[in-house]
Amino acid sequence: MKKVEKISAAENYAAATIGNFDQLSEHLFVIAPDVEVPGKVFVGEPLQSTGAEVSFTVVPAGAGGDFLHIHKTNEELYIVLKGEGEFQVDGNHFPISEGSVVRVSPDGKRAWKNTGNTPLTMICIQSKSGSLQGLGITDGVVLEDKTDW
Amino acid sequence: MKKVEKISAAENYAAATIGNFDQLSEHLFVIAPDVEVPGKVFVGEPLQSTGAEVSFTVVPAGAGGDFLHIHKTNEELYIVLKGEGEFQVDGNHFPISEGSVVRVSPDGKRAWKNTGNTPLTMICIQSKSGSLQGLGITDGVVLEDKTDW
Repeated sequence: MKKVEKISAAENYAAATIGNFDQLSEHLFVIAPDVEVPGKVFVGEPLQSTGAEVSFTVVPAGAGGDFLHIHKTNEELYIVLKGEGEFQVDGNHFPISEGSVVRVSPDGKRAWKNTGNTPLTMICIQSKSGSLQGLGITDGVVLEDKTDW
Repeated sequence: MKKVEKISAAENYAAATIGNFDQLSEHLFVIAPDVEVPGKVFVGEPLQSTGAEVSFTVVPAGAGGDFLHIHKTNEELYIVLKGEGEFQVDGNHFPISEGSVVRVSPDGKRAWKNTGNTPLTMICIQSKSGSLQGLGITDGVVLEDKTDW
C-alpha cells in the first residue's frame, strides 16, 4: 500500500508527494475497517490544508458510476488527467477526457464512470461554496524581493 | 491562441475543457494589453467557480523563478503533473516532480522554476485560507437514488 510521502514543511507551507500517477492504484483509502477504496488518496491532512481538500482518484476501465452523491457545503471541481469517461449531474450526461474540468454545486447529484479501455484518472477539489473572494490573479501580490536560486 | 471550450452546463454545474496538457502552451493569459503569459489558463470564470480558482501552468525548460509572490487571503495548492522543478517558500528550497503537492499559506513567499529538460506542468488551486469546514469525505452525502447510464 502506497503512502503520501513528506517532501518538506515549515511555518507557511507543506509539500508531499503521492508518487507517479500510474502508481495511484496502489493507494488505498480506508473509510472503515471493512470499507476500502483502492486508487483514492486525499492530501488535505498531510498538507494541513485549510481552504481546499484535494483528492486523486483512478477508476479502472469498466468501473465507476455505482452511486450518486451531493455535498453539504462544498463545491467540487473535477479535473481529468487521463482516460475517457462519462459524467452526470442531475441527470445531464456529458463526456470527459484529459483537460476536462467540471464544477458542481453542493446540490448537484453527481456520478461518473470510466467508458474507455484505460484507467480514468481525476483530481477532485472540495472548497466551501461561495467562499472565494476574487477570481484570477486579484488575490496575489508580486514582491520586489529578488529570488535566490 | 487556444480557448477554454464549453462542454455542458445547467443549474448545478458547468463543464469545460482546456484541451490536452501538451497543448497548454497554446493558451495565452492576458493580464494587460502589453502583459501576456503564455501557457497559463484560469478556469474559474468559465466554470463560474465560487469556492476555488484553478489555473493550469506550463513552464518551459530553463524558465521560471523570476519573482516571488504572496497572497492577500488565499491559500494555494500546487499539483505537479509533469516535468521536474524546484520550489521555494520563505527561502526553503525543495524539488518537485509528477505527483508533488504543495500547500502554501497566504504569507509564504513562493517561487518555482523548471530544472529539467521538458516542460514543467502544474495545477494551481486558490481557496480562501481557513474557509474549509471538514477534510476528507465528511462533507459528502451518498444518495439512495439509482444512477441511470
